[in-house]
This record gives sequence, structure tokens and C-alpha cells, in this order.
Amino acid sequence: MFENKDDSKTGISQLGEFGLIDHLTKNFKIKQKSTIMGIGDDAAVISAEAKKEIVVTTDLLLEGIHFDLSYMPLKHLGYKAVVVNLSDVFAMNAQPSQITVSVAVSNRFPLEAMEELYAGIEAAAKIYNVDVVGGDTTSSTTGLLLSITAIGQAAKEKIVYRNGAKENHLLVVTGDLGAAYMGLQVLEREKEVFKVNPNSQPDLEPYSYLVERQLKPEARQDIPKLLAELDVLPSAMIDISDGLSSEIIHICKSSKVGCNVYEDKIPLDPQVISVCEEFNIDSTTIALSGGEDYELLFTIKTEDFPKIKSNPHLTIIGHMTAESEGIHLISRANTKIPLVARGWNALKNEE
Amino acid sequence: MFENKDDSKTGISQLGEFGLIDHLTKNFKIKQKSTIMGIGDDAAVISAEAKKEIVVTTDLLLEGIHFDLSYMPLKHLGYKAVVVNLSDVFAMNAQPSQITVSVAVSNRFPLEAMEELYAGIEAAAKIYNVDVVGGDTTSSTTGLLLSITAIGQAAKEKIVYRNGAKENHLLVVTGDLGAAYMGLQVLEREKEVFKVNPNSQPDLEPYSYLVERQLKPEARQDIPKLLAELDVLPSAMIDISDGLSSEIIHICKSSKVGCNVYEDKIPLDPQVISVCEEFNIDSTTIALSGGEDYELLFTIKTEDFPKIKSNPHLTIIGHMTAESEGIHLISRANTKIPLVARGWNALKNEE
Repeated sequence: MFENKDDSKTGISQLGEFGLIDHLTKNFKIKQKSTIMGIGDDAAVISAEAKKEIVVTTDLLLEGIHFDLSYMPLKHLGYKAVVVNLSDVFAMNAQPSQITVSVAVSNRFPLEAMEELYAGIEAAAKIYNVDVVGGDTTSSTTGLLLSITAIGQAAKEKIVYRNGAKENHLLVVTGDLGAAYMGLQVLEREKEVFKVNPNSQPDLEPYSYLVERQLKPEARQDIPKLLAELDVLPSAMIDISDGLSSEIIHICKSSKVGCNVYEDKIPLDPQVISVCEEFNIDSTTIALSGGEDYELLFTIKTEDFPKIKSNPHLTIIGHMTAESEGIHLISRANTKIPLVARGWNALKNEE
Repeated sequence: MFENKDDSKTGISQLGEFGLIDHLTKNFKIKQKSTIMGIGDDAAVISAEAKKEIVVTTDLLLEGIHFDLSYMPLKHLGYKAVVVNLSDVFAMNAQPSQITVSVAVSNRFPLEAMEELYAGIEAAAKIYNVDVVGGDTTSSTTGLLLSITAIGQAAKEKIVYRNGAKENHLLVVTGDLGAAYMGLQVLEREKEVFKVNPNSQPDLEPYSYLVERQLKPEARQDIPKLLAELDVLPSAMIDISDGLSSEIIHICKSSKVGCNVYEDKIPLDPQVISVCEEFNIDSTTIALSGGEDYELLFTIKTEDFPKIKSNPHLTIIGHMTAESEGIHLISRANTKIPLVARGWNALKNEE
């Protein structure tokens, strides 16, 4: 689909490295006053606001490991690559302000494909109000690769780590879980159908929410603002990229606490429930291990309960216990099942 | 050499992503007081020193494009990948303080190979006094890939950009040029010899300086300190990664000036001169276009000349002119040759 066999398309090497960066980033506007120097010097220069600390996070996305271009449009990929990083900044209760974007690309991609990718990056930068301040562009011998670093700022006393959860704190999750993973299952199924019958026209309408959660996820930029409005400072916070189980375990290990999570409290979209039935998969398993939800998971003190209860964005799904009690799922049948991390593992994909 | 066919070696996927990161980074110590949180949360947290700005730079290094593991030991690769990034921080006249390291690796690499790579990263972090505060580790379908981001700090008024050079400013370069490129030529030649006769024992002794400049380059961390001691603030500065020509053109374009560079002033190590003769290559061409020198190129006001003259680390190689006069090399025969950027271009390597 992106093979550069069409002579009307432009080979990227015609522009050279600097020409390519100039071409792809020329529309990018600097909007953050903390950006002193963006693209165009040896390094970007950022001013730290008074009494604020800097947060930095980075992610690597590889074709064939993290994404499949047969159903992931390049514009969506660019958008998602940015969102995935910003989610980590929000998980620190910080505001992102800058990103750097490095891309390695093989010559099977024409310039027009790179323009699509950068249009997605630009769209995300605009919506999340971050400046693209640097990066690197190079050729690759095989596929496409993206490495994005996000930089944000927050007042020192507002930054939330993973290690502050205490016994009896409530465990809260934003939004709903499992949709992105089921979206991937739907897309994988359609890909198989397409291989057998290239003329089939998939009807993705019944799966629209799932597919959107997979192809165009959003990061919860509203949550740090909401928490500030509610006057709630979480004791621990993490974003859900590898699945709920894995993230609960991270908080428990960092905070040295245990946890009880209640199966009947885990928020699921009705589309997730019906598609799990269609695929004959247990929806709780998907919520626990599916991953790519980019929701936020956090703990709060019990006295903050009145501030968050009945908020439509937030669901209390459990509470923290003593470390010695372990980490458990309390099933609908009221049995206690030890939680294990079976989240998506990029290192195991090759086996 | 690194193929994981040896059963005594450990497959990296046995550890899982988090296990691998823990294993590889467990020896890394946090030394910078500006590092509030290193590896182990959604993002690293860095405190900005009072009145300092943050500089951020990133580089992507791919097997088969930027390095060849048939002569680049993994430990050297890890070391060089860090140094290349730090060089950009020094080129802003800033001090690096943190790096993030992302690695994608195919399962042909056993754990022991990753340990070698990280030993090189650790060695560089120690020598340059930077903390490894984050990163990402994933599998790749083909080779090895490194994406490093370096973060540094400098007082606002000390940061040197590319755009401050003015007419009559002197053009100064640190160290000597062309050695890393000639080291690569020597290594490539030995690789070809090895292919024909695997029992040949290369004698690299006569090329030791060149090979070291290619395999284990150092960044000029001494230069910002030296400039401060000499009380010289450059008007523009850049690091020499793509070759002298390319970097002079960058400064000239950013600063809107022209330049005359004097061929007889370009500093060359005697080993570069003799090996250029052996390879029948013009040494000036190599200095201008070879790249990977990681020296610093900067401009100073004429009144600063007495402060730097006869300093063994610094060579004045030309002066800036009006933009309309263009950018020229003044040859030994006193002819004026327009400078063009023929530096190493990662996007052209595939053609």
C-alpha cells in the first residue's frame, strides 16, 4: 500500500536528511512560551517555569512489533505515537509542553507517506498543545520506526509517583477498559478475511468504538485538570498501557502495598461486552490484560472519596491492603484470585 | 558473532521487558542532584536549577545504517551512542545531566550482548557524569537500534546557538578533523580482507588513532569549561557530526553571514595525512566532508582573539564575511572554491 513503485510519488532521499526535516516540520508552530529554541539547532532549549520540575518520558514504536500498517493508517500512527507518550506525562499529573520525534524509514515509503505520518503528529501536537522541538530522521533497512520523547512540567508538590499508595487507599480508574484490545482483535479478523477474499467490504460500524480506541486513542489530558478542580491529589498514579493487572502490580510493588480489585466494578463499555461474547473471550481477562487503554489508574485517600464519588469519568474498583495480603481480584462469585501480569509484552512478540 | 545459536547464552525474551530493563540498569547509579526520579515511573523527573534553561537533543542509530557490528564491538557502540548525543549538548555550551536510552533488539542477540551494550552506556554515563533516567526496550524484527535523548542545563546567558555569528568573527575548531572517517575506511578495508581470507590478522597499530576516533569517539566536555576559563562566549557554535563543510554552512545560514575558510589552517593529525596518502584521497576533502569528528566549531569576536590564540585545543581556520560574499574555501594555491555540503547523509545510504 505504501510501496514506492509509483513514479508520481517522491522518493524521500531526493530531499536529503535536512531537506526532509525542513519539509515535514515547516508547518509546525511554536506555541509554548517555555520553548526558547525548537528545531534548527544542536539541541532544543526549554525554560523551566519557576518552582516547576521537568518530566521526561520516551517510547519506541516499531513496524511489525507495535503496529501493522495494513490496517493502521499512517496519519493515525503519527497521532497515536504522540498520544502514547503524552499519556505518561499525564500519569505524573504533569502538563506536556514539548515533544521530539525521531523517525527511521525505508525507501519503500514515498515522501507522501511521511507527510501523512507528520500530519498525524501535527494534529496531536495541536490538540494536546505541545511543540515539536526536535528529532532525527534517518533511513532504515526494513520498516518504519518512531521514537518519541515527551517533556512536561508540573509543580513539585503536584507530581504523582507510583510509590505513594497506602493501605486502605481507594483504587480508581478513568474511562473504561479493554476496548483497544478488542478493536485490535476485530481488525486482525478483518485482515484475515481480506486475505481470503480481497473483495470483501468489512462492516466495522458495530465495532466503531473499539476500532477508534485502537487506531486513534486519546490521552486523558482532562484528568489532571479534573483532579485539581476536585481538589484531589492522588497518592499514586500510572497510565494503563500494558493492561490493568500489570499496572496495579506496578503500583503495589512501588508502594509496598497489596490490593483487592473487584471484578464487578471494572468499567467496561457495552460494545466490549458484546464483542467479547462474539469472540468467546472473558471480558474481565481483556480488561486486566488487554492493554493500550491509555486510561489513568490512581489511588486516593479514603477522605477524598466524597469528592470523586459519582463522577462519570472515575470508577472506584478496589482498595489497597497490607503488602502481606498480596494482590487479588475478588471475582463476581466472591472468590479471591491472585492477580498476575499477563500484559502485552513487546519482547515476547517474536517467539 | 552475536547470533544466539549458543544454548549457553540467555534469550532476552526469557526476562520479559521489565525484567530486562531491571537487569540491564540495576548497576546504574543516580549521581546528579537534579535527578528527582530516574527509571521506574511513568516519566523521569528532573529539577531545573535556578535561572538555568533545559537543553534536549536526540539521536537515532540503526544497525546497517549507522554502524556495522562486524567491526563495532557492542560496548563501544553503547559508549559512542551516548557520546554522539552529549556532543550536541556541549555544542550548546551546556552541561549534560541526564540521558534516556531506548533499545530495539532482535532475538539474534543474547542477553550477554545486551549486557555488553549497556556496559558501554554505563561507562559513558560515568565518564561524562550523566544519569540514565529512562528509556524503552523492545524487540525488533531485524537488527539493533538505539535511540538516545540527552538533557542538559545551562544559564540562559551562556547558551550558544548557531545564529549569532557576525561579519569578521573568527571561525575556530577544536581538535583535529577527518580521523574518524579514515578510521572507518581502514576498518572497511580490513572487513573486505577478512571476507577473502578469514585467517588474516590485521595490524591496526599504524591506524590506532583513526580507529579509536571511529570506534570510541569522545565529546568535547572540556571545551565549555575551557571557554568559561578563558572568558570567551562564542557567538555561534555547532558540533561536527556531518563534516566541517556542512556545519560551516549551517552556521552561515542560521547567522546570515558568509565565510572564508583557509585550507592550510584546517587541523589534521599526521596519521590522517599519511593514511589519506595511502588511500590516495585528498585530506582536505576528508576534513570537509568526512564527519563523525564530534569536535566543536564556533565563532568568536575579534577582540577575543588574544584569549584563545596559541591554545593547543583551538585552531582558527577562517573568518565570517558578509552573507552576499558566500561561503568559500581558500585553497593552498589561494583560489576561492565555493563550499558545498557533501557530508554524510543517512537518507542517501540506501541508494
